[in-house]
Amino acid sequence: MPQGQPSTVPDDGLTTRQRRNRPLVVVHTGEMKGKSTAAFGLALRAWNQGWPVGVFQFVKSAKWKVGEESALRALGRVHEQTGEGAPVTWHKMGEGWSWIQRPGTESDHAADAREGWEQVKRDLAAQTYRFYVLDEFTYPMKWGWVDVDDVVATLASRPGQQHVVITGRGADPRLVDAADLVVEMTKVKHPMDAGQKGQRGIEW
Amino acid sequence: MPQGQPSTVPDDGLTTRQRRNRPLVVVHTGEMKGKSTAAFGLALRAWNQGWPVGVFQFVKSAKWKVGEESALRALGRVHEQTGEGAPVTWHKMGEGWSWIQRPGTESDHAADAREGWEQVKRDLAAQTYRFYVLDEFTYPMKWGWVDVDDVVATLASRPGQQHVVITGRGADPRLVDAADLVVEMTKVKHPMDAGQKGQRGIEW
Repeated sequence: MPQGQPSTVPDDGLTTRQRRNRPLVVVHTGEMKGKSTAAFGLALRAWNQGWPVGVFQFVKSAKWKVGEESALRALGRVHEQTGEGAPVTWHKMGEGWSWIQRPGTESDHAADAREGWEQVKRDLAAQTYRFYVLDEFTYPMKWGWVDVDDVVATLASRPGQQHVVITGRGADPRLVDAADLVVEMTKVKHPMDAGQKGQRGIEW
Repeated sequence: MPQGQPSTVPDDGLTTRQRRNRPLVVVHTGEMKGKSTAAFGLALRAWNQGWPVGVFQFVKSAKWKVGEESALRALGRVHEQTGEGAPVTWHKMGEGWSWIQRPGTESDHAADAREGWEQVKRDLAAQTYRFYVLDEFTYPMKWGWVDVDDVVATLASRPGQQHVVITGRGADPRLVDAADLVVEMTKVKHPMDAGQKGQRGIEW
């Protein structure tokens, strides 16, 4: 964690407090694991601050993020029962986003991704959450399903104090440019190099 | 996340299942934030697997990791009340490790770090936890307070199925060598570059 004084003081007309509390766009990218995991770790801090957490998982997966989902949902229940922390809402693409019902129909991934993004836009406009995880959202941008310029413009004009964390490989340069904080997870060493496959509790 | 087949199949006499379930030493290092955050994100998965989680914070901090601590302690209480998940135990250096009581005495940081490591060794020998976070443990090694060779030997000979995640900058090459999985968090862009200081809910 960086310590001490910022290296420059910007000429942006904001007070230190205003600048400090400016809502952030955070991007976790790179080839290595830890991108989503660190985003869910950040969600723990948001929860503890009493910030409503909204998670949008943008890629359908056989394994999802079951551990993180169970734990964050449990924290949401803690909030319901005791008032500690904050509500947690978890949306998944591909199983049908929770705000739509399309039983029995085969869904189109591109349409699903676009629908998810439209809901994120509505939630940002309504300030539904204070902390958003758009998990693996780089991929629908990369595949052309969601327009990067629309994402950047929406993030730039979002109202209030909403923090947004976007994860996934190959973040678009326009998104990196628009972000306040970008972390790249780099591989140094991975057990699959030694022939080990993923395991329960570690990979999912 | 890596997908598909491992690139090599090792000649180690283990079955795929044995290899898959081999307990891991994971190191999160690098200059950038996300090291501890990702470790606590992994702890969510461990909790969901029903693996007892033990956290050891090795550097005294004005701000600690209050968000993660509150959230993980809340998950520990969920386990106590409902049986869901797993117990969570959180130890802090500098406020006096929880297993010792030294009221009113000024503590010596090097001695505190050594005491913490001795407790970790006892817990590994007793298999007290199944998932360990040794947060910022690279620093006592770097500062010569804890012997790296002892750490590597202890990890190599730990019994059972205990996963250990170590975080902090400047991981010793011997530790990197001993680890199964090493992730480096690299800075791409940070708001402090633009003069912004840390903020509640994001930095702590």
